Amino acid sequence: MSVAERAQRGVREERLRDDITTTADFGAIQTDHGRGRTVLTGTDANRRAREYLVDRLEAAGLDVRVDAVGNIAGRWVPDGVDPTAPPVACGSHLDSVPEGGIFDGVLGVYSGLEAVRAFQETDADLARPIDVVCFTEEEGARFSNGVLGSSVASGKRSVEEALALEDDDGVTLDDALSDIGFRGTGRLDASQWDSWLELHVEQGERLQDAGAAVGIVSAITGTIRCSVAIEGEADHSGSTAMADRTDALAAASDLILEVESVTNDLTAERGDTVVGTVGKIDNEPNAINVVSGRTELGIDVRDVHYEPMETIIDHIQTHLDDLESQRGVETTFEQPYDIPPSQMSDRCVDALERAAERVDVSSLSLHSGAGHDTMHLADVTDTGLLFAPSRGGFSHSPREWTDWSSCAAATQVLTAGLADLACE
Amino acid sequence: MSVAERAQRGVREERLRDDITTTADFGAIQTDHGRGRTVLTGTDANRRAREYLVDRLEAAGLDVRVDAVGNIAGRWVPDGVDPTAPPVACGSHLDSVPEGGIFDGVLGVYSGLEAVRAFQETDADLARPIDVVCFTEEEGARFSNGVLGSSVASGKRSVEEALALEDDDGVTLDDALSDIGFRGTGRLDASQWDSWLELHVEQGERLQDAGAAVGIVSAITGTIRCSVAIEGEADHSGSTAMADRTDALAAASDLILEVESVTNDLTAERGDTVVGTVGKIDNEPNAINVVSGRTELGIDVRDVHYEPMETIIDHIQTHLDDLESQRGVETTFEQPYDIPPSQMSDRCVDALERAAERVDVSSLSLHSGAGHDTMHLADVTDTGLLFAPSRGGFSHSPREWTDWSSCAAATQVLTAGLADLACE
Repeated sequence: MSVAERAQRGVREERLRDDITTTADFGAIQTDHGRGRTVLTGTDANRRAREYLVDRLEAAGLDVRVDAVGNIAGRWVPDGVDPTAPPVACGSHLDSVPEGGIFDGVLGVYSGLEAVRAFQETDADLARPIDVVCFTEEEGARFSNGVLGSSVASGKRSVEEALALEDDDGVTLDDALSDIGFRGTGRLDASQWDSWLELHVEQGERLQDAGAAVGIVSAITGTIRCSVAIEGEADHSGSTAMADRTDALAAASDLILEVESVTNDLTAERGDTVVGTVGKIDNEPNAINVVSGRTELGIDVRDVHYEPMETIIDHIQTHLDDLESQRGVETTFEQPYDIPPSQMSDRCVDALERAAERVDVSSLSLHSGAGHDTMHLADVTDTGLLFAPSRGGFSHSPREWTDWSSCAAATQVLTAGLADLACE
Repeated sequence: MSVAERAQRGVREERLRDDITTTADFGAIQTDHGRGRTVLTGTDANRRAREYLVDRLEAAGLDVRVDAVGNIAGRWVPDGVDPTAPPVACGSHLDSVPEGGIFDGVLGVYSGLEAVRAFQETDADLARPIDVVCFTEEEGARFSNGVLGSSVASGKRSVEEALALEDDDGVTLDDALSDIGFRGTGRLDASQWDSWLELHVEQGERLQDAGAAVGIVSAITGTIRCSVAIEGEADHSGSTAMADRTDALAAASDLILEVESVTNDLTAERGDTVVGTVGKIDNEPNAINVVSGRTELGIDVRDVHYEPMETIIDHIQTHLDDLESQRGVETTFEQPYDIPPSQMSDRCVDALERAAERVDVSSLSLHSGAGHDTMHLADVTDTGLLFAPSRGGFSHSPREWTDWSSCAAATQVLTAGLADLACE
């Protein structure tokens, strides 16, 4: 029996469940649809979740460090292993969106710890240390657009820049982390890792629909977000003839349908990974008897390849020019968020596929349409991303649910995958 | 010289200006764009504006009554005139929208009083009494959709129903009028009038563009307002393929463009009086990374003929059916507001045209795209509506402005028109 086969048998569903449900008590909310949590970075709920994690890591004998932006890493060095060898790392995050679910992020952190406990119990003969990591502010619900801790750990953002970020009340990340005792020192450097695996709930229904126990992600889509403002003229709906109008909302509607149409055309050519969404609209003065004077749109474009994303963005900009000349509106275009797609490394994907075979569960190869810390890490180390099924696809909601047996099965696959990587 | 010709020479610009500027002090606001007023029904500002009107009516010897819904009417019976003869009535309103202009409504009330004072000074030999009227809650900024007092005076709404209307805090119109001492008795009955003339600021730019001193309204557009709700499915923008979406905002955009398109087609056939506007949109959850789950639209349709309005409404309903079958959304349609177009009576229009000739000012025949109390009265008596030019077309705003000389010229036309009608 291989190390990986033996190790995955050491995973204990009850222990994992205890850690997740205990964490669910911090910032807990109870709704008609289920139990949820609100754990924004630097809040008291976040402090308690972090303190519990440090306790649990230390209880398992891991050596814990906290970096300057609050990223937590617990290192386990198996007996006889060179402590300076590049570790295999795993983990996720403990912050949540407001009224989020109890599995999002938490499963990834505690499945990593559970893997280490399984290695310990099965005397796994590994060749590398294992790091169990919790990244700061993955959700971006307080200080950022999200995936903040991993952006620093991958060297894409400086510690100083991150610490200077402010919430809506002007509180800096620096102060918020100091307040809860998690403003550490130094910088967790993901480029020093041998490899990285993250287990996360799917937040979609593909695994459920396919009846698969785990999803092995091939790529994480890139995301471009743009803000478009369309300026028309606010006029009385009764006394302004159709020919005399410059209707911002009508122009915005034209653009919304254009985004939908060009994206649909691209899916026909390139496959259904490409998506374009106008999910946000703000209209002024937004009164039934006034022609709209200004309409703002928030647009989100994603794919596993960058080229179709660029095609959509180019199309939006061309269409804005058309709207200016045809409808007399003035438009502005901003693109504050642009993360390219991340391909998972063959080495990690292969390890996870072998792991699913060893655990003897069905797996599905899929892409991730949602962003994860793993997408930043993919630029500096070998990465793999594993999904557990989400019942009904709900996430960022108290409806979020993954059966405990599914959590345990996915953790077994993670454990076998980590063992595979750490034996190389 | 005819009575009308002589009477209009009795109009005093300073006296009219004093009344309008004094009224502008009640609920006054000062902005960078000019002086405005906020006078909602039943507020202290409204009480002061009403008390000042009663004082001014009584000072001019008019007999004042206040009806159960707070409509104020001052009657002047010229010497030797049968006091029971059906009067010629004129007036407008003293309430305003929040941060409205100082002319909207106020000009109509005080130009009526100024006409009476001009008749008195020129010993006008009239055959009928003159009523100067202030209707309650024309703007609908507190208790209703507007034109409330005239809806009661024209018998379209009962006194009881009107008094039971509540503001956002649950205060009834009954209590609010009692609080300011303007909950009178009985019902002002417009069907008892010989005829009615209203002078109002245009709230558009047609007079300014044409260089005309007054506008003589041929018809007031009808207004249908509808509320449409489109129910889709809120989904993650990254993990929901285009083919799997039921995007409420995209469906709403489709409808917005359809309203614009069908209305444009109708203007080509029927002329530019027909307008269709989607000015209000409320989108849920309205987040950049979520496919929209529900979108509500407020639609406003107007014309001087009812048939094109019905065509647009039918088209909207058919298109909603199409959206349901083509996009899988669910839709609801409500039509809470439906006022048919009002044609002004030939008799009053002719009187105003003769009056403009007598005063020797240029006039423009036009329709009113905005609603006025006159539209309710048109169903029970002969009505005419006269516009004074609005600089830049601004109204419902501190930017609203009509030059004092223009106010006086329009008041002269009103005076000559009233004399014409009251001599018959």
